[in-house]
Amino acid sequence: MKKKGLLIVISGPSGAGKGTVCKEWLKRNPEAVLSVSATTRKPRPMEVDGVNYFFISREEFEKMIEDNEFLEYAEVYGNYYGTPRRFVQEKLMEGKDVILEIDIQGALQVKERFDDGVFIFIIPPTMEELKRRIVKRGTEDPDVILQRFTSAFEEINFIKRYNYVVVNDQVEEAVRKIDAIVLAEKCRVDRNNYLIMYLKGEI
Amino acid sequence: MKKKGLLIVISGPSGAGKGTVCKEWLKRNPEAVLSVSATTRKPRPMEVDGVNYFFISREEFEKMIEDNEFLEYAEVYGNYYGTPRRFVQEKLMEGKDVILEIDIQGALQVKERFDDGVFIFIIPPTMEELKRRIVKRGTEDPDVILQRFTSAFEEINFIKRYNYVVVNDQVEEAVRKIDAIVLAEKCRVDRNNYLIMYLKGEI
Repeated sequence: MKKKGLLIVISGPSGAGKGTVCKEWLKRNPEAVLSVSATTRKPRPMEVDGVNYFFISREEFEKMIEDNEFLEYAEVYGNYYGTPRRFVQEKLMEGKDVILEIDIQGALQVKERFDDGVFIFIIPPTMEELKRRIVKRGTEDPDVILQRFTSAFEEINFIKRYNYVVVNDQVEEAVRKIDAIVLAEKCRVDRNNYLIMYLKGEI
Repeated sequence: MKKKGLLIVISGPSGAGKGTVCKEWLKRNPEAVLSVSATTRKPRPMEVDGVNYFFISREEFEKMIEDNEFLEYAEVYGNYYGTPRRFVQEKLMEGKDVILEIDIQGALQVKERFDDGVFIFIIPPTMEELKRRIVKRGTEDPDVILQRFTSAFEEINFIKRYNYVVVNDQVEEAVRKIDAIVLAEKCRVDRNNYLIMYLKGEI
């Protein structure tokens, strides 16, 4: 019997470094899969369908919403973005771990629809560091910076809905913790019913 | 603010290899502490008070039971054995992880009195292997072997009261999993309230 993979949700405020952490974790875990989002926006040059995004029409997207085919979705500046449930479930059934990098609103939607995932909140070492990272990101408009920082501050309250919190001070160390979380989760008793049945000679 | 250590309870049927796993884990984590039991039996040559056991009188032991000073205790062939709560708590407050190797009955008692611990069930790769290990242990009496094996088989039902299950096929691999479990547990949101308060500027 093939063991199912794990859905690992990497989330947190903007500026926490979710993207870097995901990329580094994937490098070290090449057998795992990055969840590919669907979108209605047009592909940019160099973007490949099924790799960067699944590019679909507005009609297709809305049909998928109706059919409950998204783990989460949102409309941003007139374009839809969403995480197709089927892609994730197929990979999990193949025994592959799937990593999903997503903002906090998205993660909370996923949690409602797929509670079996592992929800990891990435935080900066300090709020000053978060501010520094948001500023460094290059948006020069002070209003945007202030707004991002304010919402990051508020979003920290949602941490209680997550399973784990990882401080992203050194990326190396954050990735090591995510590796440990994934391995530990696979040892959880409630994820090993088949093992117990096997030992008892029931399967 | 010093972070509290973790109580790691290593348990499982006899023959699963709890002892070996604990010893190897401690070698790799020299800053951690092995929980020392108290007993009313007489010290054997070479046994040192406070290292192998806390050797105490029957009166002292019974007074400690009355005062709820044990995380668990049992009477075996006329001698008491127990895990003193104070020793464990002092080490945890110092920020040290404490590892406790204990049979299933004992672990279930600890769980009632100290739910904050991490409960790990060690199992053999197969029941045949468990039998082989029990036989190898040197008791020649087939009745004793059969009895041990039967109770091991029944004890596997208690696995559901534990947090994690680790198959002890290769000791190296089992120790690696325990390391991951300890690191992951330290990242659990419910063990990091102080971190969230710190980020929010509340402390």
